[in-house]
Amino acid sequence: MAQESTETPATFSFQTHPSRYKHLVLSVDGPVATITFDVQEDQGLCDGYTLKLNSYDLSVDIELADAVQRLRFEHPEVSAVVITSALDGMFCSGANIFMLGSSTHAFKVNFCKYTNETRLYIEDAIEHSDQTYIAALNGTASGGGYELPLACADICLVDDRRSAVALPEVPYLGVLPGTGGLTRVVDKRMVRRDLADIFSTLAEGIKGKRAVKWGLVDAIFPSSVFMEKVYERAAGIADGGHSGCEGITLNPIEPEIDDDGIRYQHVELSFGPVERTATVTLTVPDTLPSIPSNPAELGDNWFALRAFRELDDLLLRVRFHYPEIGLLLLQTRGNSETVLKLDAQLMEHADHWFVREVMLHMKRVLKRLDVSAKSLFALIDAGSCFSGSLFELTLAADRSYMLEEDGVSIALSELNFGRLPMGNGLTRLQTRFLADPKHAASLTDNRDTLESDDAEDLGLVTAAFDDIDWEDEIRLAVEERASFSPDALTGMEANLRFAGPETLETKIFGRLSAWQNWIFQRPNAVGKKGALTLYGQPETAVFDYRRT
Amino acid sequence: MAQESTETPATFSFQTHPSRYKHLVLSVDGPVATITFDVQEDQGLCDGYTLKLNSYDLSVDIELADAVQRLRFEHPEVSAVVITSALDGMFCSGANIFMLGSSTHAFKVNFCKYTNETRLYIEDAIEHSDQTYIAALNGTASGGGYELPLACADICLVDDRRSAVALPEVPYLGVLPGTGGLTRVVDKRMVRRDLADIFSTLAEGIKGKRAVKWGLVDAIFPSSVFMEKVYERAAGIADGGHSGCEGITLNPIEPEIDDDGIRYQHVELSFGPVERTATVTLTVPDTLPSIPSNPAELGDNWFALRAFRELDDLLLRVRFHYPEIGLLLLQTRGNSETVLKLDAQLMEHADHWFVREVMLHMKRVLKRLDVSAKSLFALIDAGSCFSGSLFELTLAADRSYMLEEDGVSIALSELNFGRLPMGNGLTRLQTRFLADPKHAASLTDNRDTLESDDAEDLGLVTAAFDDIDWEDEIRLAVEERASFSPDALTGMEANLRFAGPETLETKIFGRLSAWQNWIFQRPNAVGKKGALTLYGQPETAVFDYRRT
Repeated sequence: MAQESTETPATFSFQTHPSRYKHLVLSVDGPVATITFDVQEDQGLCDGYTLKLNSYDLSVDIELADAVQRLRFEHPEVSAVVITSALDGMFCSGANIFMLGSSTHAFKVNFCKYTNETRLYIEDAIEHSDQTYIAALNGTASGGGYELPLACADICLVDDRRSAVALPEVPYLGVLPGTGGLTRVVDKRMVRRDLADIFSTLAEGIKGKRAVKWGLVDAIFPSSVFMEKVYERAAGIADGGHSGCEGITLNPIEPEIDDDGIRYQHVELSFGPVERTATVTLTVPDTLPSIPSNPAELGDNWFALRAFRELDDLLLRVRFHYPEIGLLLLQTRGNSETVLKLDAQLMEHADHWFVREVMLHMKRVLKRLDVSAKSLFALIDAGSCFSGSLFELTLAADRSYMLEEDGVSIALSELNFGRLPMGNGLTRLQTRFLADPKHAASLTDNRDTLESDDAEDLGLVTAAFDDIDWEDEIRLAVEERASFSPDALTGMEANLRFAGPETLETKIFGRLSAWQNWIFQRPNAVGKKGALTLYGQPETAVFDYRRT
Repeated sequence: MAQESTETPATFSFQTHPSRYKHLVLSVDGPVATITFDVQEDQGLCDGYTLKLNSYDLSVDIELADAVQRLRFEHPEVSAVVITSALDGMFCSGANIFMLGSSTHAFKVNFCKYTNETRLYIEDAIEHSDQTYIAALNGTASGGGYELPLACADICLVDDRRSAVALPEVPYLGVLPGTGGLTRVVDKRMVRRDLADIFSTLAEGIKGKRAVKWGLVDAIFPSSVFMEKVYERAAGIADGGHSGCEGITLNPIEPEIDDDGIRYQHVELSFGPVERTATVTLTVPDTLPSIPSNPAELGDNWFALRAFRELDDLLLRVRFHYPEIGLLLLQTRGNSETVLKLDAQLMEHADHWFVREVMLHMKRVLKRLDVSAKSLFALIDAGSCFSGSLFELTLAADRSYMLEEDGVSIALSELNFGRLPMGNGLTRLQTRFLADPKHAASLTDNRDTLESDDAEDLGLVTAAFDDIDWEDEIRLAVEERASFSPDALTGMEANLRFAGPETLETKIFGRLSAWQNWIFQRPNAVGKKGALTLYGQPETAVFDYRRT
């Protein structure tokens, strides 16, 4: 069995349910839902810190991610979501500093990546599911507590002469706001950079009319009418909600875990073939159901949803629980025809809310794969079915190897041409063929069954080997990859995977996160006398003031 | 006097001249120039390493930057530049590893930034000065030795069965190619990402036809005809050169340095007002010459060139020699009318090669300011002349403070609207007003003299104070800035300064450099058992394989 992380052992689960929430309350009232932060101080993930002032740790953010996901699948009628706080005078004080201060570097990085993904999912729900998030800041929103509202479409702040929005990380902690704050302030809300500079160094933050004037919030209302005004706005935005949509139930997807690996219904991870590697196999059932007149009746057991939920859960587990696994070998098992038929069904019913949500979910899971700090090799071998939507797995991989053998083939489907874009806004095929957009476009109508010769000619796989060479070539490539410096690979992949245009999303995972990761290594933040280390203690941080 | 860097003391100069080159030979033959790498092993900047196999350190790169600059100003007739090597079988083996391994973190970061800037200047010369660089790889080009060709417009590789192009940093050193290599491979040459992945992990590199097929080089020629073919291509590209252009001489601009600061003719740095800060003052002469019929007769003493060369030299000195200076206060002295008249002259003669080069140089110096890891506050006070081209200094600053007083004013000129763009491709005004492009556009015709009220209303300055508050407000802001974690400020500024679109250039300084800086902090690279530390020694690196 692979070595586990100290912070999140293999038994730790990313699954939850509103009935088990400790920190959030999710309520739905017709077209308007409300997520209320009521963080329980002593119910954090680990001992050693208390979640005061609605500060959060991973356990809180897992509930938030769950709520955002459930609203899409279980409450599709909802079209406006209010996020607010149960505390008086405090919306949210951000990621818990004592939790961060006591975490390993790897955990900090993974924690920030996960919280970033959740905030991007909020923006994805606003843009693609018409579920508009309204942040109702009934008290101060500080640090990550303001970065969450930044992901919402509308930010309302109570005007009570004391509640402010703030990014106090630089002055208080010597680190950056790590959840997209700097990027969203200048790139999404387009706050003037000099005002953003003042704001990001002003620990006490900015309140009232000035917060509106600078573009940091959209509206302010007095305490007496605050929630009333917020719900007026929410009702206006909701506009009656999405009538005729009835949600499904997302059941838990807990895997079996033992010394050999992790097993779900369709997705399986086995440790090996060599140290620090694991093989992920996605198996497609022989037959898939036809689509009923109400596709939502397929429910959460539908392969297209279930398999990608399993893959998503697995990715989180591999990131958090198995840091030493550096290379994932991606395999599929099943019949390409089945996958292509499923893709055709998805496209045929793309206008139905449930089918749309299933495809949006596939998109998000593939994006999570793109930004995972694990090397990815796809193995297109006998019995595989890397076609259509599943071909995206090979395109997300750093390399794809294909066996030269009769019957081993791939094929494209409509899902490769726009429904599953990367964070840079391009399809994976467009990113792959950045040098030759015509070639990328020429593939649009290609529905051929492509064996290795054709796939290589079209540039769709990295290399093909016959069965004499296959085993040796793969073994050599895998052993070599597993021997390299994991840090160099993370940096290399972060640069090679996202050619082409940059977006808010790629800026957050590229520029912002990379700088934050650097700062998270610096003694000025995490050394014995670092600002993050000493936060809340009587001693003052001591800086090495040499600028780098 | 401020504390100096251990690696480059205050006496170290960034000035050189072809007659004093140790490592390069610059020759000009009509429209075609040649830069030949002939690095002298024992003539590096520091003891403790030898520059074997045309590897380079800062002393080599200073010569390269000088050659690129002189070709633009001293040899404007040149339209093609061949870069090649005097060694047999080796073009360039990249940055010297023993130099990197023995350098401080800050030096590594500054060294990479400087080499990145030089390569971007090559691309700038190709795009804007019609001086097309052709890399003639008469032997292997490895690491930084291949990143230099990547900045050229045309890469020719000798086809001799052994010469290859390679980026061996990841497999050999556990770091990234730090001079734009990964970015240029996928974003400029648009090599397919999976092939780029193989290439960037293949220490021995790729040669011959495969290098052409993958897009890593543009042409291969056998040894027997290699240089002949290269010069044929160069002659074709040169197309006779730029006839009628006669260059000027760039004389040295060595400053006076003492305990108070650094003084040039027009630019001056004084340490203070408080610890870890310095004040940079640019003084505009009372009168400037009129433009002769051949503007090049103005020579290198023309204020528009001289002052920006001084500022450029100063920026390098402050970056390298004075790491503990974290905040630069930018001041100007002189008459705004003089600056505006100069700007009008620049625009009137913009089609003349020399005037064009002067403006391109201003652009590059301002970009160097943008990516300097120093906080920048512009102080628009009595006697200042922050108008037109010099107003860009305030726009490059993180904040600008303006004194409310009769006669203290700013004004815009045509140079604020396209001639001096940032690395993101936008003007500083466009970046500033990203939220309101109409406002940015509405300023195009504004030639008013703007005192503080108007400047504030138009959003052109951060804040204005009257003379009662000025001193206290500035003192507080300066002291506060100088107290923050320098690392957090570097990361914050790198994110706030570059809102809007991303380009090759911003990707290199944002995404790529940030990841490299992170890796340069990681024990797997720089620890006692790190790959960079142990390179060339019998001991093998020992990695902590946990992926982050």
